[in-house]
Amino acid sequence: MPIRTSVPDTTSAIDRSHPEFPVAELVDEDNFFKDHTPPAYLPEIEAQVREFIAHHQTTGKNVVLVTSGGTTVPLENNTVRFIDNFSAGTRGATSAEYFLENGYAVIFLHREFSLLPYSRHYSHTTNCFLDYMDEADGKIEINKKFADEMLLVLRKYRHAKDSNLLLLIPYTTVNQYLYTLQLISKCLQVAGKKALFYLAAAVSDFFLPSSKIPEHKIQSQATGTLVVNLEQVPKFLRRLVDSWAPSAMIVSFKLETDANILILKAKGALERYQHQLVIGNLLQTRKDEVVFVTSTDERWIRLTEEQKGVVDIESLIIPEVIAAHTDWTERQ
Amino acid sequence: MPIRTSVPDTTSAIDRSHPEFPVAELVDEDNFFKDHTPPAYLPEIEAQVREFIAHHQTTGKNVVLVTSGGTTVPLENNTVRFIDNFSAGTRGATSAEYFLENGYAVIFLHREFSLLPYSRHYSHTTNCFLDYMDEADGKIEINKKFADEMLLVLRKYRHAKDSNLLLLIPYTTVNQYLYTLQLISKCLQVAGKKALFYLAAAVSDFFLPSSKIPEHKIQSQATGTLVVNLEQVPKFLRRLVDSWAPSAMIVSFKLETDANILILKAKGALERYQHQLVIGNLLQTRKDEVVFVTSTDERWIRLTEEQKGVVDIESLIIPEVIAAHTDWTERQ
Repeated sequence: MPIRTSVPDTTSAIDRSHPEFPVAELVDEDNFFKDHTPPAYLPEIEAQVREFIAHHQTTGKNVVLVTSGGTTVPLENNTVRFIDNFSAGTRGATSAEYFLENGYAVIFLHREFSLLPYSRHYSHTTNCFLDYMDEADGKIEINKKFADEMLLVLRKYRHAKDSNLLLLIPYTTVNQYLYTLQLISKCLQVAGKKALFYLAAAVSDFFLPSSKIPEHKIQSQATGTLVVNLEQVPKFLRRLVDSWAPSAMIVSFKLETDANILILKAKGALERYQHQLVIGNLLQTRKDEVVFVTSTDERWIRLTEEQKGVVDIESLIIPEVIAAHTDWTERQ
Repeated sequence: MPIRTSVPDTTSAIDRSHPEFPVAELVDEDNFFKDHTPPAYLPEIEAQVREFIAHHQTTGKNVVLVTSGGTTVPLENNTVRFIDNFSAGTRGATSAEYFLENGYAVIFLHREFSLLPYSRHYSHTTNCFLDYMDEADGKIEINKKFADEMLLVLRKYRHAKDSNLLLLIPYTTVNQYLYTLQLISKCLQVAGKKALFYLAAAVSDFFLPSSKIPEHKIQSQATGTLVVNLEQVPKFLRRLVDSWAPSAMIVSFKLETDANILILKAKGALERYQHQLVIGNLLQTRKDEVVFVTSTDERWIRLTEEQKGVVDIESLIIPEVIAAHTDWTERQ
């Protein structure tokens, strides 16, 4: 299927040719980009990302790309219905904070309206926005219950923003996610080994190819059933490892609900994609324990009973990931 | 299929027998409740709703149930993937404010984390929570740019909460939505004609019956495709009109993307369910115009060019709905 021509060509930023692979060997990943239109705003994002990375070429900081939140798969072109992957973005938003505290610059590629570093403490909670506010002497103020802690969080947030340490890039659909991931990966090549990929987003495994998406809202049929024929999203991790970011360290996540297959799936991903680390977790216990799986090792990181519900497990995960990054860098 | 017995029976609040219909005439709506387990928290909600409605039996206020936001259809039991209907909840949250300003008590049945009355002005915006804050003299405060307007919004929110005029009830899945809608409808029967239903939620038309939902995350198959066989969600509006809320006025919404079928679909719904009013809107223009469709009339309500982007169209819609409710009440 040819690239659509009805949409303005905003693809110049994207290398579609993959000169390292002759045309005859194009795989699903390459075909995806041939068959799907890039988001129109991509050149804008490219400018921001390039500026951010160039800045940290001068500061000398390591740069981590943290991906976070679910992706949507539209079932209609004027999107009313879509398939989504459950994720509030807690893992990604929390991890981003600990990367910042440990000296990394962070590109935070996140699902729009999912949790963000720092503001996560106050959104998606049982409090609504205005429950943090109070009126005193005819003026609005932060409720005294929250003010002291919020000031500490605000200072960290402001430091990250003012020091240009945190770049927020939103996406919604799996198509936007993949195009943006590709773009950022290629921009990050200049950072070499200093680049780290921490892929915590819950990316859909299945999608509806654009050629099959109806223009209008699907109407109920007399039969009363709706059959959705989804295709597998190509395994982009392969392209990330072998051509988009060949000199960076890559950490992927494996989320399962069945404990019996978690390690097996994590090992399978490592063997297939040949990257450095898979962090495995179960939906039910993901806030209390994760397992680091490498080609030679598997090691659980767990909160103690006393730490559960009190300590972010990401405060244990991130220093370990950074140690692995440092170690890996030295071995290159 | 029998009612599941593995889950504590929390169904006593719900009349599953529908004595008005002999068993032989059970329709899809009734079978849905037979085949699906009610949310365990339903008795808690029932207590809140009954108290709220009893209170407004004494204040004499009209009570409107506003439903708002999309519903999810889980594709797995340990939910990772689900189908969702696009809706930030803007229509519902904004409408709820105007109902409150016009003297109604509001039960706001909303998708968790969708927009809420009043706080909607500050969430799901390009600002993150902390962007509204500032530090001055070592203390945290509301950024001066926002403080004056936020105080006015806070006062309205506090008035609604302190005067027990606004009851917030969340849901996530279509199953939770339907059980809660049924519960609230039956509780509202005591309010008679003073009850108004304003059904702005974007409820899924299709769902995966619980008997077909796999326990664990769906694994990718070698074939690379996933076929999801969805069934039509029964038309609950029929039950709402004929047995859950026979003496209330009911307003439903019809959202389409194709202008050519909007009025036709709205008329069809009115004929099928025999309720009082359908408000039709197109996804593309829903913030600028809607059409009121009754059995005898169709009338567009539109923002002027000057009002677009400045005035909430709900500030025009709600007084019209209230006028229709008053008119209908007098004619009963």
